[in-house]
Amino acid sequence: MISNIDHIAIAVHDLENSLEQFKILTDATDAQIRIEEVPSEKVRVAFIQIGNSKIELLEPLGTASPITRFLEKRGEGLHHIALETENLEAEIKRTVKENLLPISAPSEGAGGKKVVFFNPKDTGKVLVEFIQKIQD
Amino acid sequence: MISNIDHIAIAVHDLENSLEQFKILTDATDAQIRIEEVPSEKVRVAFIQIGNSKIELLEPLGTASPITRFLEKRGEGLHHIALETENLEAEIKRTVKENLLPISAPSEGAGGKKVVFFNPKDTGKVLVEFIQKIQD
Repeated sequence: MISNIDHIAIAVHDLENSLEQFKILTDATDAQIRIEEVPSEKVRVAFIQIGNSKIELLEPLGTASPITRFLEKRGEGLHHIALETENLEAEIKRTVKENLLPISAPSEGAGGKKVVFFNPKDTGKVLVEFIQKIQD
Repeated sequence: MISNIDHIAIAVHDLENSLEQFKILTDATDAQIRIEEVPSEKVRVAFIQIGNSKIELLEPLGTASPITRFLEKRGEGLHHIALETENLEAEIKRTVKENLLPISAPSEGAGGKKVVFFNPKDTGKVLVEFIQKIQD
């Protein structure tokens, strides 16, 4: 079951600069914010917790980052959405039955969570991530 | 206070077609889906409830719709995010103090809720909406 919108990701050139803008917008306190490097995805990210969801700001780590290519092509802006599930494997099996296949096998994303992505051509031109909920 | 990500909006050419794709993706039942016309914003929308948030699919109503222009320029894809607050007026006062001004005065959006939008140039190139929470 897809239980939650885990986060909305936004590609940015400068994490600190964008974080300042989004802090003003959301009135987020430092307790709501977490900054992390995810070398496997070649990004540096800032999460802003808002209710049960997060805004994720994505800054490229190096020119080989997929975010570098996105910024060159589209500029800053909305990049992907992540849907949370308590059972990633079951959700992948379910979508595969409907001929909706992830781009690749589950990998480790920010926070060490298991994630998969789908091809935007199959999901309304929107890059969609499924993310495994970690039990509290 | 910004308490929740109310929705993520996606611009689409064909509401029924995109809704089918997102139903497969999210496994949403009919009880999670609501379709509505919002003539004031020249859109037809489908909301898919996921946890406390919604995916909003936006189809233009007529060629004068801002969604028509978006689709011509960018194609289908992520369009805006909406942040929920229990006190819209207080949030606007707060951002104005920080020199972050909405594009216009509050107006009535989908579901009869009061909303304002900000200029994407002030919010990381992302179109952001504030939406008044309706008390249950």
